[in-house]
Amino acid sequence: MKHEILESIKNVGDIKKLNIDRLELLCKELRDEIICKVSETGGHLASNLGAVELTVALHYVFDSPEEPIIWDVGHQCYSHKILTGRDISGIRTEGGLSGFPKSSESEHDVFVAGHASTSVSAALGIAEAKKISGDENSVVAVVGDGAFSGGMIFEAMNNAGRSKTNLVIVLNDNEMSISPNVGAMAKYLANIRSRESYFHFKDGVEHALLKIPVIGKGLFSALHSVKTFFKDMFYSSNTFEHLGFTYLGPVDGHDVGMLIRALKRAKSIKRPVFVHVNTLKGKGYDPAEKNPSKFHGVAPFYKENGELKKDSGSSFSSEFGKILCDLAEKDGKICAITAAMTDGTGLRKFSEKYKERFFDVGIAEEHAMTFAAGLAAGGMKPVFAVYSTFLQRAYDQILHDASIEPKHVVIGIDRAGIVGGDGETHQGTFDVPILTTVPGITVYSPSDYSELENVLKKAVYSEGVQAVRYPRDSEKEIPKKFKKEYGNFDYFKGEKDCLIVSYGRLFAEAAFAAEKTGVSVLKIGKIFPIEHELIEIAKKYKNVLFFEESVENGSIAEHFGKMLIESGFDGKYKTFCVSGFVPHMKVEKAMKLHGLDRESMINAVKEALK
Amino acid sequence: MKHEILESIKNVGDIKKLNIDRLELLCKELRDEIICKVSETGGHLASNLGAVELTVALHYVFDSPEEPIIWDVGHQCYSHKILTGRDISGIRTEGGLSGFPKSSESEHDVFVAGHASTSVSAALGIAEAKKISGDENSVVAVVGDGAFSGGMIFEAMNNAGRSKTNLVIVLNDNEMSISPNVGAMAKYLANIRSRESYFHFKDGVEHALLKIPVIGKGLFSALHSVKTFFKDMFYSSNTFEHLGFTYLGPVDGHDVGMLIRALKRAKSIKRPVFVHVNTLKGKGYDPAEKNPSKFHGVAPFYKENGELKKDSGSSFSSEFGKILCDLAEKDGKICAITAAMTDGTGLRKFSEKYKERFFDVGIAEEHAMTFAAGLAAGGMKPVFAVYSTFLQRAYDQILHDASIEPKHVVIGIDRAGIVGGDGETHQGTFDVPILTTVPGITVYSPSDYSELENVLKKAVYSEGVQAVRYPRDSEKEIPKKFKKEYGNFDYFKGEKDCLIVSYGRLFAEAAFAAEKTGVSVLKIGKIFPIEHELIEIAKKYKNVLFFEESVENGSIAEHFGKMLIESGFDGKYKTFCVSGFVPHMKVEKAMKLHGLDRESMINAVKEALK
Repeated sequence: MKHEILESIKNVGDIKKLNIDRLELLCKELRDEIICKVSETGGHLASNLGAVELTVALHYVFDSPEEPIIWDVGHQCYSHKILTGRDISGIRTEGGLSGFPKSSESEHDVFVAGHASTSVSAALGIAEAKKISGDENSVVAVVGDGAFSGGMIFEAMNNAGRSKTNLVIVLNDNEMSISPNVGAMAKYLANIRSRESYFHFKDGVEHALLKIPVIGKGLFSALHSVKTFFKDMFYSSNTFEHLGFTYLGPVDGHDVGMLIRALKRAKSIKRPVFVHVNTLKGKGYDPAEKNPSKFHGVAPFYKENGELKKDSGSSFSSEFGKILCDLAEKDGKICAITAAMTDGTGLRKFSEKYKERFFDVGIAEEHAMTFAAGLAAGGMKPVFAVYSTFLQRAYDQILHDASIEPKHVVIGIDRAGIVGGDGETHQGTFDVPILTTVPGITVYSPSDYSELENVLKKAVYSEGVQAVRYPRDSEKEIPKKFKKEYGNFDYFKGEKDCLIVSYGRLFAEAAFAAEKTGVSVLKIGKIFPIEHELIEIAKKYKNVLFFEESVENGSIAEHFGKMLIESGFDGKYKTFCVSGFVPHMKVEKAMKLHGLDRESMINAVKEALK
Repeated sequence: MKHEILESIKNVGDIKKLNIDRLELLCKELRDEIICKVSETGGHLASNLGAVELTVALHYVFDSPEEPIIWDVGHQCYSHKILTGRDISGIRTEGGLSGFPKSSESEHDVFVAGHASTSVSAALGIAEAKKISGDENSVVAVVGDGAFSGGMIFEAMNNAGRSKTNLVIVLNDNEMSISPNVGAMAKYLANIRSRESYFHFKDGVEHALLKIPVIGKGLFSALHSVKTFFKDMFYSSNTFEHLGFTYLGPVDGHDVGMLIRALKRAKSIKRPVFVHVNTLKGKGYDPAEKNPSKFHGVAPFYKENGELKKDSGSSFSSEFGKILCDLAEKDGKICAITAAMTDGTGLRKFSEKYKERFFDVGIAEEHAMTFAAGLAAGGMKPVFAVYSTFLQRAYDQILHDASIEPKHVVIGIDRAGIVGGDGETHQGTFDVPILTTVPGITVYSPSDYSELENVLKKAVYSEGVQAVRYPRDSEKEIPKKFKKEYGNFDYFKGEKDCLIVSYGRLFAEAAFAAEKTGVSVLKIGKIFPIEHELIEIAKKYKNVLFFEESVENGSIAEHFGKMLIESGFDGKYKTFCVSGFVPHMKVEKAMKLHGLDRESMINAVKEALK
């Protein structure tokens, strides 16, 4: 397909010159471009296909970047990237674009995103700043309905509605976040959404109806004013109106003309407006329309039929799900909780088999954690499976609700360590420092599937807060002589006076490096609290090297070093950790950059032994 | 006043035998008891006075602890403590009761509280556990309207409404959290609240009205069903109903009989119910009714007139507010943000003087942080003043929204370190570890008011995320020769081969200890990142002792130790930090227990020099 119109756009403002027919053609071209490019690199597909017309209409009506568009979660911004002059070939791979808004890429990416439900807070901040500065431009936040299960957006809406700003909130309502939405809000939106022609209808009919003499006015007016009555009828007694917004919608999100009309009206209103847009996730690509969950974040696929180019195979997540199902079969008290990540965390089968004991709470990690503590207080054995990066949201809940009065809660921490294509916003490199501040917590980090099984069982049948952290992707091969029954730690003695300490998937690298160099390795399975025996082993060495997939401050490596120094250790101690925020690139490449691959380990050992 | 009825209650179930007259008398006695005891020790007064009748009615209708009552925030539980057999004399002081629910005190305290908006999550967890176990007892959560500005409760409500549990949520609506409420939700509640006799009215009239033939049915039914129309009218098209709850209310929260009727009905419904109760903060004690903010958390006072026994004097909080006002006078870009703590954080004057640039966002720390980042993105200089313990809620927002793409945001961290009477749930001993994981952050911890001024200015005129942390209460006297111009650090050389390192209010203790023992002191003003010069100074000593008001893992003491070991330091390094959760007791006592007072320091020095 030739992208004639797309190629004619030199500046995003150019689309303002196009008529509706040309705009519709532009949408077709955008859709084609996205399917082509994402089929090659993988990426977020379904949400991007759903947001094509909306993105075109937004840039038609608003003047970015003076009127900034803030994307919630951010993974639906591919059309925005293309329209603002960026090539999405190689997106999410090293050297290519980020899969999320990134201000270093373009002045049109005004605010970073990656975690859900932040956009209204950010947009309101910018809007209030504009107000203080006397700038009357609008600020737009585009939010998926999934983000509406996150409490933070409610905190922001509670403030935004009463603000005297020109804030436009666009709800991109596709009835899904990543999995289909859950909860009362989703039901409520579905209810409004079903009034398909509502925006159209209201627009014309409202005035006419208000002219009809009201029958029964005497009775009703004592209880309710006539105006409110009509308002309630047409606005569906709308929660967004209660929150202080002018509500427009629902609007057909694949009708560019209608979208432009609604957004123009929103822009003209000069107070907080809420525009409700109905879209279809995966729109225009059959396989994605039929299976939007699969095509939410997808690996490279064949464009013709949507089949994946490579079978995804096993992973720590899928193994975690299997083990938990096995445990739940024998123990009716085991419950599983996810924050909108049933598939991502490997809980699909659990959710089908143990419906009564499975809870998808929406994008709501704070609630999930305290809810788990509540289940534990009620005598259950809750397991909350969550990506490391999203667990950051629940730090206070771990501390305040699960630990001050200890509850037996298991946290399954998925995507721990470096994550790859998602980049800075999704790295699992902060959980170790925050977890190890929590009094009484136990943290495990298994190196392969069988160790995962071993420690998950331990965690489920222990007390207090138990965390089991494991990486994305599959287990790695570990040299045979480094396999053992899994204790809290395993010690492999080499002949040279140097000890490598590590855990999790890095242990495979460490084992290879030790085999090659003849040094000793200490693998920690229970990484926290650190057993004193480990220090006794380590202090015998002249050289101790600790490799860890975590930021350094607050890492196990740091705690270990502290204990070493206190033990009277007089050798050399060196740590290799992750520094700063890691951008999108292959996991292997990031490991190399941070000195965590086997070659770097070998070099570090050689350096130490010099 | 004699507490005849109160004394007759041996078991909380005994109140079920009392008639309405006796129950009303019981409420009087409870109120008297609370005023008497709190006037002696200080404590949360206004909220407790407002919840007397509600608490009596709850224990009249529900069978605690089989039907557990979960108190949100928890500081309104004094009547509950008394009715469940506890003496509140000496509450919040060492050896006395906790000011919050505490399961070690009583089986009736089912879930810890101290931070807002957690109760519905916890109660829902317990309710789901009951459902799985086939237990049909109700679970009650009592929530103040202030907690409804916190997003977490919305996450929970989104899940609770659709649950098939016997959950009863009681909204204790007193139109305030700590300061008067802000935001759309508060307005909305005020709107419902104004229908004073609504519960009464609806109860009887609903059926009668439904029998009246509807005029104009033909016109309306096409758009809106008659049933919905009536429902909207009487339920005020209620957001809580949209969330899936059966709504009862509003109920007069000082009418025990009416409360009992409403709660009985709620208990009988056997699905999620929302009971809206109107109460008056400070009810029954004139000074508190007139000034509920002052009597929210109050120091000991004269019962007769409500005057404080001791003037509160200056504090780091009040100084912070003054300094910020001075800065804001000269710089129109400085904004201040609080999460419902205008008075607590010393921002009252700022809020009056710079209305346009002041934002009270409600109990919403997550939003506050990202909103601040938004203000910064819009060119402002936002300063978010927040208690250390509540900042725990915003960890992800600091990392994801303020740091990945660095925004110049200043966080004023109040109540950093040990806090005293509030105990475990309010300690400011976790912020240093979590902040020092954040790439690019700068953290200051001033030792007195003039250093506070110095570092706050630096923070406001720097870049990136800047945190300034300071303790509760007032500055301490520092021996004269330890006063200097404030640099990033100050070094005071003694004659003995031992160095004390410390910062913040502990420096006063350290200075006295050094004076007494003749050792050196290193005071750090900019505590993070740690300057390499500090390590150069410290490594010359044989003995280095680090004293810090923080949990140890992830503390500055730990980071400092790591740098020392890497520098080739071969002396002895010892750290003195806070371990675990600190219960309620005087700050001075807690310091002593953790080895952080001057005597402990002197002893530690002597030990080191042996």
